Amino acid sequence: MIKPRILVVNPNSSISVTQAIDSSLDELRPHLPFDIATATLHEGPPGIESQAHIDGITQPTVALMKAQPAQAYVVACFSDPGLALAREALTVPVVGIAESSMLLALGLGYKFGIIAILDASVRRHLRYIRTLGLENRLAGDRALNLGVLDASGEAAIERIVAVGRQLRDLDHADVLILGCAGMGQRRSILEEKLGIPVIDPCQAAVQRAAGLLALGYPRAS
Amino acid sequence: MIKPRILVVNPNSSISVTQAIDSSLDELRPHLPFDIATATLHEGPPGIESQAHIDGITQPTVALMKAQPAQAYVVACFSDPGLALAREALTVPVVGIAESSMLLALGLGYKFGIIAILDASVRRHLRYIRTLGLENRLAGDRALNLGVLDASGEAAIERIVAVGRQLRDLDHADVLILGCAGMGQRRSILEEKLGIPVIDPCQAAVQRAAGLLALGYPRAS
Amino acid sequence: MIKPRILVVNPNSSISVTQAIDSSLDELRPHLPFDIATATLHEGPPGIESQAHIDGITQPTVALMKAQPAQAYVVACFSDPGLALAREALTVPVVGIAESSMLLALGLGYKFGIIAILDASVRRHLRYIRTLGLENRLAGDRALNLGVLDASGEAAIERIVAVGRQLRDLDHADVLILGCAGMGQRRSILEEKLGIPVIDPCQAAVQRAAGLLALGYPRAS
Amino acid sequence: MIKPRILVVNPNSSISVTQAIDSSLDELRPHLPFDIATATLHEGPPGIESQAHIDGITQPTVALMKAQPAQAYVVACFSDPGLALAREALTVPVVGIAESSMLLALGLGYKFGIIAILDASVRRHLRYIRTLGLENRLAGDRALNLGVLDASGEAAIERIVAVGRQLRDLDHADVLILGCAGMGQRRSILEEKLGIPVIDPCQAAVQRAAGLLALGYPRAS
Amino acid sequence: MIKPRILVVNPNSSISVTQAIDSSLDELRPHLPFDIATATLHEGPPGIESQAHIDGITQPTVALMKAQPAQAYVVACFSDPGLALAREALTVPVVGIAESSMLLALGLGYKFGIIAILDASVRRHLRYIRTLGLENRLAGDRALNLGVLDASGEAAIERIVAVGRQLRDLDHADVLILGCAGMGQRRSILEEKLGIPVIDPCQAAVQRAAGLLALGYPRAS
Amino acid sequence: MIKPRILVVNPNSSISVTQAIDSSLDELRPHLPFDIATATLHEGPPGIESQAHIDGITQPTVALMKAQPAQAYVVACFSDPGLALAREALTVPVVGIAESSMLLALGLGYKFGIIAILDASVRRHLRYIRTLGLENRLAGDRALNLGVLDASGEAAIERIVAVGRQLRDLDHADVLILGCAGMGQRRSILEEKLGIPVIDPCQAAVQRAAGLLALGYPRAS
Repeated sequence: MIKPRILVVNPNSSISVTQAIDSSLDELRPHLPFDIATATLHEGPPGIESQAHIDGITQPTVALMKAQPAQAYVVACFSDPGLALAREALTVPVVGIAESSMLLALGLGYKFGIIAILDASVRRHLRYIRTLGLENRLAGDRALNLGVLDASGEAAIERIVAVGRQLRDLDHADVLILGCAGMGQRRSILEEKLGIPVIDPCQAAVQRAAGLLALGYPRAS
Repeated sequence: MIKPRILVVNPNSSISVTQAIDSSLDELRPHLPFDIATATLHEGPPGIESQAHIDGITQPTVALMKAQPAQAYVVACFSDPGLALAREALTVPVVGIAESSMLLALGLGYKFGIIAILDASVRRHLRYIRTLGLENRLAGDRALNLGVLDASGEAAIERIVAVGRQLRDLDHADVLILGCAGMGQRRSILEEKLGIPVIDPCQAAVQRAAGLLALGYPRAS
Repeated sequence: MIKPRILVVNPNSSISVTQAIDSSLDELRPHLPFDIATATLHEGPPGIESQAHIDGITQPTVALMKAQPAQAYVVACFSDPGLALAREALTVPVVGIAESSMLLALGLGYKFGIIAILDASVRRHLRYIRTLGLENRLAGDRALNLGVLDASGEAAIERIVAVGRQLRDLDHADVLILGCAGMGQRRSILEEKLGIPVIDPCQAAVQRAAGLLALGYPRAS
Repeated sequence: MIKPRILVVNPNSSISVTQAIDSSLDELRPHLPFDIATATLHEGPPGIESQAHIDGITQPTVALMKAQPAQAYVVACFSDPGLALAREALTVPVVGIAESSMLLALGLGYKFGIIAILDASVRRHLRYIRTLGLENRLAGDRALNLGVLDASGEAAIERIVAVGRQLRDLDHADVLILGCAGMGQRRSILEEKLGIPVIDPCQAAVQRAAGLLALGYPRAS
Repeated sequence: MIKPRILVVNPNSSISVTQAIDSSLDELRPHLPFDIATATLHEGPPGIESQAHIDGITQPTVALMKAQPAQAYVVACFSDPGLALAREALTVPVVGIAESSMLLALGLGYKFGIIAILDASVRRHLRYIRTLGLENRLAGDRALNLGVLDASGEAAIERIVAVGRQLRDLDHADVLILGCAGMGQRRSILEEKLGIPVIDPCQAAVQRAAGLLALGYPRAS
Repeated sequence: MIKPRILVVNPNSSISVTQAIDSSLDELRPHLPFDIATATLHEGPPGIESQAHIDGITQPTVALMKAQPAQAYVVACFSDPGLALAREALTVPVVGIAESSMLLALGLGYKFGIIAILDASVRRHLRYIRTLGLENRLAGDRALNLGVLDASGEAAIERIVAVGRQLRDLDHADVLILGCAGMGQRRSILEEKLGIPVIDPCQAAVQRAAGLLALGYPRAS
């Protein structure tokens, strides 16, 4: 029997990011009766760091989804680009990693903290959190101020832990969200060092998509 | 290989309610690599309709959990009784059906409506929704004013659809929650008649417990 | 001496809408020492009624702005499409008609009501109002459920007044916003019939852009 | 003539705590035409520091109330245990010291700060404050991290003043609440050192119960 | 021994209103060890129905207080005129009847409804409720649209009950406030007809002033 | 042709403050087809620093407006004294500088910070911000703790920049408001040093009054 497929789309062109996403999903695969596949948007920029990047990949991302059939889709960029368009264009569930990580966080603590890559993304996050109606649950959003690729380097661990500690101790977060698609491998070290739950947004989104399929909901919102 | 177990505890003594819960979970079982079992608290009242009932079953419910080992527990009463005690006493995830249904609703629409059994439970729901920090997402909570057992009768359908329609049209709910453990069999007819997603809280809670296990979180909150 | 120019961009291709916008600005022109010009995005759809329309005109709208120099720009569609991109791409103030109408409304009453064209746009408005952080100031958003072009017809007046009356009397709005770019000619009849201030969003946006120029602010937000 | 009685129930078994409560009420007795009595729940734990303690004393506390007739009752533990059950079971006003202290605080300043005994209680307080709908009035909740009995020792004064100062200066509290039943004797020194009003929750609750009796309200809420 | 005095100032010149206030306080006098006196501001208007009335009596009201020594003062007009000035000028507690009624309401239910005299006062009430930070606890504010003096006539009962019923049934108020100083005699009939607590704001304010004196707080806020 | 007049009333008696206001408006005059005049309330106090000052100038300020005809009025004190009375008494738009500065701030950033003169005014500001329904947009309000006249001295610059930096960096303000009528000449240096928009409330109010006239609104709110 062919298992239903959940396709995780990395809308940037960095294969290494897609690989990092894919490997963070390995932990989840044994628990889900779905085929969890990943795809890279080759015409995307190496990292999504501006509004021009976001508006530039909206239509190509949805085109990729149309071209690669699946029973549910995950948009694997923390700005959740193209979600509204994809939901209008497709008849299966489409979820974003940012919204999914926050919905999961609501059931793991009261106030969530976000570890962002760059100061420039914080303001964009805040707007989006208001859009989702979750502003009263945000403890804080603090940036590493490392590049997307640097953040995946080994040397970044210390900085990530320090920012997580600020969110926990100064902002009173009781659950943390990794605010970028390729940081899943940081989850366990952060949980160990800080003693509070940490969310890899790609894991959160795939689990949510699986739940929507299992429960029989045709659409997310 | 033995599958991990999620135990769904019905804290009232009505076997028929436990059976209704169990059968509404059948839809979910094929999608989850877990053993989803149900149990009845035989010393509970036939239905949980007062604060005395809630305070009376808190300790027995947790005792039952301790006596019947599982990898996660669901408390299957829409008042989420005993949740705080169970989380303090046990080292595995424990979730309530009310909180789980609302967390799921946040990702299926913007404002949720609750179909309650009795007017008397509405005020208790409102307090709890404030406790969860979700008051700004509640569209309305309207009661059927039928007994727990009547609500499961065939004749109740018309009333349930009418209340759901009020929540959708007067209160602007875009997702509905069945506010009682044994009403799962109403989900499909309501979705068909009203055209918006409907949540069976027992399904929502089991799916959430499964997600916590799959993602490796030791506790809910 | 050449007066600084404020360019009002209609991102749909309907010349009649651009003309309606232009004529509603005539009331404002004598009071502003600026050249208030209008432009039509000829490659846009006749009306902007879907997410595909919005995402389809984001980049062309900004391209048009880059091609037609001005000291400030107004995006004249009530979904405020392309605002984030335009603000990133340009070094002069860019304002949207929806956000500008709501900011003006805050100083004319406590709760504003929106007269939308279609039910389908109401949900999009609500998301955007949350994004702007103004949800607590919204009295209601009710749709005419007439097409964009029908709404500009003479026969629509009665329907518009009826919806405005509902917003005032049932939703307690004390100021109304016309939720579409081409409805400016309805303002005076509505004010006369209902006795509360009514906002044409295009007028509101041009006045705001003029204020930003007069006060020397390089950017809106 | 027999004066109506307000019975203040200490649900822990520490006589010294009951005595501290009783003595802090001496200030109030001359101003109230009521017999203000205290009682100790001998089967309670020495201090209430866990959910198991709370759920364990709910039913015995209400049983004690039923056994000792009074015209109104005060539950003298800052977790307000058993309030819902007592209100369902009894036909006279029952008030908790936590809720009463916060209601009083709303009329003495804009943001209240709470001096908690232990970090572990802070999270429980926050949930309860949300339940009461008063989250927007909380400045902060900071713990002494001394045991219940230590907090009543003479050496604790310096620590209490330091925490109160943080609440005033860092969290912008303009009124403070002593977050434990037996700390009433700290009120005057704190007010003197910090220059803002300080609330002993037992005094607040007795005064509120007296007010309900004087005004003829049969129930609190 | 001379009992401390609480002086209730009616800032309008209608002796009949002062008498209605005085008589509604008779219920309270036996329960309070204070001399509860009333005074009329003879230079005030017959009723306070406009901003000019409010701004016109601010200074005379405080002058009257200075001329008639007391241990605490109540301003007996539902607009709470002159409160800020009186608190700055005097060194004893000064409370308003509107704020006091709302603070009392918070402990008698979750959402309060206000029975106003005139539509024109509703908007003023709403501003003031926001100032007090209690907007999230207001169920509704509905006007009788009878004159101040008519509202005290016997024929007004039916209208008052009808408005109270709307607040309870349409707006979900679970406690009602009489939004005018001279309506105290309506409390018992309303409670009997509607089955929820009703607050006479003058009673609420005197009880609050008595509590501040008993508890030793030098100022309200 | 005679240009319509906007009269800016300084309700304190310090001519130097009126002159500072007038000179900060010079930047605006070329962009507005209105006669922007200023007036001093000679019977006012040298600075408005207490509630007695505010209540003392309410009626004289409105009397001055009635004596000096204009098409719109600005009350140039950051406490917005007399606004309600003026709006009731006059048939043309009357705006306050505090409310106008905050409305402008909402369109220049998400959270505004206020630079107050004295700690004593901060509490008054907070009350007023709640009245306006804008509490969720306030980042912080920090005082210079210099006298009104000192704040206009040259030596104050360093202190003003330091407080602005705290609002930006500690409170996350992205737009600043000068919380006093005579500080307009600080705007440019602050913008240069801090890199975020700064609002002179007198400029904001005059621009808003001009907008109301241009758009044909008979009243502000």
